Amino acid sequence: MPTVERFGVSMDASLLKSFDGRIKKAGYRTRSEAVRDIVRNYLVEDEWQDEEAEVVGTVTLVYNHHQRELDHTLNDLQHKYHDAITCATHVHLDEHNCLEVIVIRGSSKNVRTISERLISTRGVKHGKLVCTTTGRRLS
Amino acid sequence: MPTVERFGVSMDASLLKSFDGRIKKAGYRTRSEAVRDIVRNYLVEDEWQDEEAEVVGTVTLVYNHHQRELDHTLNDLQHKYHDAITCATHVHLDEHNCLEVIVIRGSSKNVRTISERLISTRGVKHGKLVCTTTGRRLS
Amino acid sequence: MPTVERFGVSMDASLLKSFDGRIKKAGYRTRSEAVRDIVRNYLVEDEWQDEEAEVVGTVTLVYNHHQRELDHTLNDLQHKYHDAITCATHVHLDEHNCLEVIVIRGSSKNVRTISERLISTRGVKHGKLVCTTTGRRLS
Amino acid sequence: MPTVERFGVSMDASLLKSFDGRIKKAGYRTRSEAVRDIVRNYLVEDEWQDEEAEVVGTVTLVYNHHQRELDHTLNDLQHKYHDAITCATHVHLDEHNCLEVIVIRGSSKNVRTISERLISTRGVKHGKLVCTTTGRRLS
Repeated sequence: MPTVERFGVSMDASLLKSFDGRIKKAGYRTRSEAVRDIVRNYLVEDEWQDEEAEVVGTVTLVYNHHQRELDHTLNDLQHKYHDAITCATHVHLDEHNCLEVIVIRGSSKNVRTISERLISTRGVKHGKLVCTTTGRRLS
Repeated sequence: MPTVERFGVSMDASLLKSFDGRIKKAGYRTRSEAVRDIVRNYLVEDEWQDEEAEVVGTVTLVYNHHQRELDHTLNDLQHKYHDAITCATHVHLDEHNCLEVIVIRGSSKNVRTISERLISTRGVKHGKLVCTTTGRRLS
Repeated sequence: MPTVERFGVSMDASLLKSFDGRIKKAGYRTRSEAVRDIVRNYLVEDEWQDEEAEVVGTVTLVYNHHQRELDHTLNDLQHKYHDAITCATHVHLDEHNCLEVIVIRGSSKNVRTISERLISTRGVKHGKLVCTTTGRRLS
Repeated sequence: MPTVERFGVSMDASLLKSFDGRIKKAGYRTRSEAVRDIVRNYLVEDEWQDEEAEVVGTVTLVYNHHQRELDHTLNDLQHKYHDAITCATHVHLDEHNCLEVIVIRGSSKNVRTISERLISTRGVKHGKLVCTTTGRRLS
């Protein structure tokens, strides 16, 4: 079991009031949980500064599946980087548009490179990388 | 078939050289494709400014599946918002950590609210929303 | 004098250790100060969601002062919006390039509009808006 | 005089229409100018990936000037890093709150470090770094 520690935070009453209002709106039940979340966020940003650290990224792509060459290229890319690509989910947005979310794991440098390759593929309308974490260093 | 138009862009030779280097590194084959991509990006940001516009978001969550209450809460949330949640993909990162990517569709206001609820759930270590598009207005 | 309140945050020992390492690197002397800062950041983002709230923005522009029309246009813009523009600082980066930082105060909607006008002025090489606060609601 | 080159961009009519609407709203007069701006933005982001590249940053701080220790600390920091800090502009937001914009020049690594030190100073309510450019490589 992980050890839980406790520390005190002092804050002006008015700042605390604003914070309480904001976290209630966001759905947090306790201040502790909200503080832990924003602390983790702050740490994940830092993990991605280290090019060699093992991270996880998800790439969201929106594209038109009628563009035949695109399926082929995306497939090729996934084979080329199969060690790093964990899985992909495909959503049919309408008769033309697809959304695909691809989970990639590796060094932050590699995940960025693969993500750029996917996003720059001809026919991809919109692509974004989420920089997240293996969770190991964030208890 | 969509009509394709063509317009000219003038650019200083040195800026163009830097641009060519950058897009080659990113994997673009032509300047046209790179310009289209950054134009679409610029437009998607704008779609999300309109609270009522129909958009698509993907939420990436990393959490510890041993926290039993969490599965339950995430499930409850997904049932509550089942009209908007298209699908979810689950990845087992290691024996403790899970990654889940949830695709949400609706007004930008709703997608943001659902995303905040998911991310603020107790036990979620890291969560991020990608603001993307139905693709309809981006040919 | 503002009332200071104190609340407790519980955190796994390993997360706390990572947090301590990160804030030491950033220069924070206490956890309380770091938590207050990330809480304020979180709240300022929210202020800017409300189009009518009074906010402060700073716009950083880099441009080539040899482009004569630019000085004129930037001047015109500043006169047009003089009620909102508090001040501007000019830095001579080299014999060609200037940096200008302009402080704007008003509704978030207005500050965004003025910022876009400045950034889109022909000859401006790079422009960025910082969304900050009057400080009134953040003690 | 810099050499100006011209290249063609092909784009679906509907995407071009959306682009035209957006850039008109932002205040651009021509497509060329808008494309150049978003290209430069894309390149400046890349400059900051190289830790040794010479860049320019502006740090916006909001703080309460009644906190005496703060003036002292900010002054100390500016002396410590005087080689890198070009200038600072001070705005009196109200009787309590000040805004300060500090222009910093150096390697991206140094500019980030100095920025973190300034932002983490006790009493600073909100701080943000803008990553911009010397303009030399962006004609």
